[in-house]
Amino acid sequence: MCTALSFQVDNNHYFGRNLDLELSYGQQVVITPQNFSFKFREVANLDHHFALIGVASVVDNYPLYFDAANDHGLAMGGLNYPDNAYYADSISGKDNVASFELIPWILGQCATVDEAKKLLANINITNQQFSQQLPPSPLHWLISDHSDSIVVESDRDGVHVYDNPVGVLTNNPSFPKQLFNLNNYRTISAATLPNQFSAQVPLEDYSRGLGPRNLPGGMDSESRFVRAAFNKYNATWDQHDEVANITELFHVMHSVEQQSGLDQVATNPAKFEYTIYTVGYNLDKGLLYYTTYTNNQINLVNMNKVNLQGNSLTAYPFVNDQAINNVN
Amino acid sequence: MCTALSFQVDNNHYFGRNLDLELSYGQQVVITPQNFSFKFREVANLDHHFALIGVASVVDNYPLYFDAANDHGLAMGGLNYPDNAYYADSISGKDNVASFELIPWILGQCATVDEAKKLLANINITNQQFSQQLPPSPLHWLISDHSDSIVVESDRDGVHVYDNPVGVLTNNPSFPKQLFNLNNYRTISAATLPNQFSAQVPLEDYSRGLGPRNLPGGMDSESRFVRAAFNKYNATWDQHDEVANITELFHVMHSVEQQSGLDQVATNPAKFEYTIYTVGYNLDKGLLYYTTYTNNQINLVNMNKVNLQGNSLTAYPFVNDQAINNVN
Amino acid sequence: MCTALSFQVDNNHYFGRNLDLELSYGQQVVITPQNFSFKFREVANLDHHFALIGVASVVDNYPLYFDAANDHGLAMGGLNYPDNAYYADSISGKDNVASFELIPWILGQCATVDEAKKLLANINITNQQFSQQLPPSPLHWLISDHSDSIVVESDRDGVHVYDNPVGVLTNNPSFPKQLFNLNNYRTISAATLPNQFSAQVPLEDYSRGLGPRNLPGGMDSESRFVRAAFNKYNATWDQHDEVANITELFHVMHSVEQQSGLDQVATNPAKFEYTIYTVGYNLDKGLLYYTTYTNNQINLVNMNKVNLQGNSLTAYPFVNDQAINNVN
Amino acid sequence: MCTALSFQVDNNHYFGRNLDLELSYGQQVVITPQNFSFKFREVANLDHHFALIGVASVVDNYPLYFDAANDHGLAMGGLNYPDNAYYADSISGKDNVASFELIPWILGQCATVDEAKKLLANINITNQQFSQQLPPSPLHWLISDHSDSIVVESDRDGVHVYDNPVGVLTNNPSFPKQLFNLNNYRTISAATLPNQFSAQVPLEDYSRGLGPRNLPGGMDSESRFVRAAFNKYNATWDQHDEVANITELFHVMHSVEQQSGLDQVATNPAKFEYTIYTVGYNLDKGLLYYTTYTNNQINLVNMNKVNLQGNSLTAYPFVNDQAINNVN
Repeated sequence: MCTALSFQVDNNHYFGRNLDLELSYGQQVVITPQNFSFKFREVANLDHHFALIGVASVVDNYPLYFDAANDHGLAMGGLNYPDNAYYADSISGKDNVASFELIPWILGQCATVDEAKKLLANINITNQQFSQQLPPSPLHWLISDHSDSIVVESDRDGVHVYDNPVGVLTNNPSFPKQLFNLNNYRTISAATLPNQFSAQVPLEDYSRGLGPRNLPGGMDSESRFVRAAFNKYNATWDQHDEVANITELFHVMHSVEQQSGLDQVATNPAKFEYTIYTVGYNLDKGLLYYTTYTNNQINLVNMNKVNLQGNSLTAYPFVNDQAINNVN
Repeated sequence: MCTALSFQVDNNHYFGRNLDLELSYGQQVVITPQNFSFKFREVANLDHHFALIGVASVVDNYPLYFDAANDHGLAMGGLNYPDNAYYADSISGKDNVASFELIPWILGQCATVDEAKKLLANINITNQQFSQQLPPSPLHWLISDHSDSIVVESDRDGVHVYDNPVGVLTNNPSFPKQLFNLNNYRTISAATLPNQFSAQVPLEDYSRGLGPRNLPGGMDSESRFVRAAFNKYNATWDQHDEVANITELFHVMHSVEQQSGLDQVATNPAKFEYTIYTVGYNLDKGLLYYTTYTNNQINLVNMNKVNLQGNSLTAYPFVNDQAINNVN
Repeated sequence: MCTALSFQVDNNHYFGRNLDLELSYGQQVVITPQNFSFKFREVANLDHHFALIGVASVVDNYPLYFDAANDHGLAMGGLNYPDNAYYADSISGKDNVASFELIPWILGQCATVDEAKKLLANINITNQQFSQQLPPSPLHWLISDHSDSIVVESDRDGVHVYDNPVGVLTNNPSFPKQLFNLNNYRTISAATLPNQFSAQVPLEDYSRGLGPRNLPGGMDSESRFVRAAFNKYNATWDQHDEVANITELFHVMHSVEQQSGLDQVATNPAKFEYTIYTVGYNLDKGLLYYTTYTNNQINLVNMNKVNLQGNSLTAYPFVNDQAINNVN
Repeated sequence: MCTALSFQVDNNHYFGRNLDLELSYGQQVVITPQNFSFKFREVANLDHHFALIGVASVVDNYPLYFDAANDHGLAMGGLNYPDNAYYADSISGKDNVASFELIPWILGQCATVDEAKKLLANINITNQQFSQQLPPSPLHWLISDHSDSIVVESDRDGVHVYDNPVGVLTNNPSFPKQLFNLNNYRTISAATLPNQFSAQVPLEDYSRGLGPRNLPGGMDSESRFVRAAFNKYNATWDQHDEVANITELFHVMHSVEQQSGLDQVATNPAKFEYTIYTVGYNLDKGLLYYTTYTNNQINLVNMNKVNLQGNSLTAYPFVNDQAINNVN
């Protein structure tokens, strides 16, 4: 399914996301400048707004963002939330935003998580479809700025906006259950802990790396949530080196990658979910780095190399071919 | 510590290895041609032998290989085996091979695992040091050809050569214990299994990827052994596509990568073991692909691009700088 | 902390409960006849009501029940729910029942879970204390009749009454999280499952009992919830034999027993929580069986041996001394 | 299958054992006095020897002991060791002892583990059968005195006598693998450990008993080995109180009990292994305490109440009926 996370190192702020699916939707890196006209079904259109960079399928000249960041450093990703996500009919007096409109509606207007919270205070996420071919996807969202993160879940009992103290999101179950589940991993440690079993039983520290032995290794969303949180908080970040941090970010994201073959989602023929792309944003500089399952090299798209005052989309197809460097 | 594995896909044969340490020994990709003179301490020198490609530190013009393959498709890697590895004094009547000589001695002469087994029948792995600065490392070895693998362990009770039916090696404990431990993971599955808890308790399949949930997620050598075996056997290999297989090999190897920060091996200052490099050999074609912790791009060195009839080493320093592709 | 469960075998209905604490409150087996006058703080007193048998501390001639059953086969147990339980001030228009009054108020009036649900529809569980020495305990409750179970939790956001499809309750977290967590154990099985790891890796079925290997073995409330549910549903019940079923019930309850020494709750001096008593009710016959930590023999108190039309309590102190049978 | 363990508390020495099978062999408590004539197939008969108390099937007036202790405080139990146990043909020059003779041969002559070690130095455990109806059972043995324990395993490569520093034995795999496996549980603790996950992630200590959460809960022999070791070393023993220690011993043994229904060993009809009996020896006083699956009460047989200078067996059938104490 998917994993997203946010973190800051000194003054640098990053947002990472894996997209895990068994098929691709033609997504590419898409920059939306400030004067591209966002039309919405019920809420007011945004003709002038913050600029966006992210990964999107473009349909009928509309960027259906999977994840994105704006030029003020607010980032947002929509992650699969099947069986739980519930989108309602329109409700009079509410801000009725279709699920596929939520990312541009928030990122177009909000510079911070606090501003997003205010905008979300009156929201109703509606079940309108983008088109007959594109019914709503069941999603929940992680929204992060330089220092804070929130999760937005639209359940059968209404929209919930949760503070996210760990800055991680995966998929089911709902966020409060995921956050609670972390409590069960309090003895996971980067260091090998002393023997607690019994002072009378001399236990051997027979291998390096016994500290995190009980990390869950599965592809399921609880396992990825725990690993992503542990790996992010224990990663060795560098205060000053952008490349080192981006490199470490991709190591963290790849630690919750879904390798093809491990997560079977259909038979006859067998289909497997895998990490189609991994994206890492530098939220301060408008940079989007990515790798794909088929290309290990890190690619970089810089938002500031296009005219952000423009009114038309700029799209960069993913570089999917394995870019091998021939040394000799 | 380290992980190595071997596998074949139809007619293609591969060997992968992660080197996990907290510091680097100046290793590079080194090709040893057929007429480079290998001097040994006690056994007969090899002036003419099979050619080798692998990762080595070169000291006094001697390639100290960490892992290598020869031009007949036999591959070999030395992996950390602390506290268990025991190298003896020379024994009269035995083939006394120092631990650092083992890789060239085997790969210089053997085209297959069967030939290696015969050569190993009379071996004594000695405790001689390469130099005062380079005492013997405590190692055990994985040797693989197109279809078979063996493990060589020199313990206090002598040298053991084990058939390795799963073609995987990590570190402690000794290989028979590692192999036995796999039995505990029989219910790990790529597919989500049906409810076995009780027919009277309706359990929800709430997330994709629940099949491998109980895979051990640690950095320790048992956890990596289990994950490497499961991930290798369930990977989606392609019968015909070399690049697809190399790509999948790197996904498997990176699934047992040690991210920096998760495996603390010293305090004051804190030091962390991490996967310094990952190497993948195509054993049929003499190709060595690698990534490093600091450079995600796959680099390729082709053994056949140098004169394999020569008598001097060719070395390629690792490309360690992150090779980012600027899309715009 | 505590574990309770309910189950039916053909026409026999049982309710079991462990009380886990580090100290005892002087509890005994107490029978309350139908005309004992229950005085309540705010709701109407019950001068005539169903008769009760259960475990209680008697203070000022008032039975503070830990768990009980009535003469119509409805059973109820209060289990520790610290940090979560929230008892409110009285609310006008609600049935304001103090937490310590809840068991007699429900069991005194309700013959079934459905009747209990109706009575609970307007409840407010209040924070009134029994006495200055006895402030309210943070509890939640399992209520079971012949076929159904519900859980009552009074949280900060109000009173919740949950259907309990598995008929098990332990402690934190709240019941919906406990029930959800069972989904993670779908591959636990009484039978040893076939190898799912890989058809290419022959894994040995080296021990009987590998099916439930991944059952959590802890003393914590999630581990006990999972074990109690698995063990109850897989136990071998007998359609006709009361003694066999009571015997099996005690085996199930003892499988989630807290052995003294495994759950340290204080230091200087060290204190350990342990299973002070285990009680098993036959709900059809008004029988209460129990063991204590210090006495393995099963003791039986029969409600119907006292005059249930009476108006005064009958109390039987626990037989705590180990009743050893000297064979020779 | 089975679990056995030994421990000492100050000057009291105990030995406990569960017998786990799907069927019973008519075993009872049997006392063998010092002048009962033990006939052996190849080694010298023992006409005068130490007296024994233990659990045995008596066939043709020969006590086939499952476990026993002698009047000098040496105890011994034979536990299932299928697929691994290998009994050889007789070997000239060795002490050829049939597997079913081992317990009387050792306990008849040895007062301590050191004496047993010496007697075992020249042993060959043979494959002779007791009778056509009673072929050899595949076993290994735990031998314990007041302070030490050893394990005897007869494998395909010969007889091994291992020091057992933890005084626990279950079943497969072989003892060195079982002992090694304990290293993986170093962070299991009776106390709830501080948060090691990350200082930046405030994790809640939401339940008592989280310390041993990761204890394996299975019925398999590795799970039982770990639990028995942890529970024994963390139990609260009493320096002076015999009854308290016996009570605690039964709690430890019951913590690794196999509840009927959890370990399916056959289908059509379904058969389940369960803990047929639990026995606890006071090695200093010649006392044998036991419970059975069907009778919770502790029964006591005192070796010293029979004439230990006699020459005929005294047998006490198990008290299998549930001995319920009717309180009213």
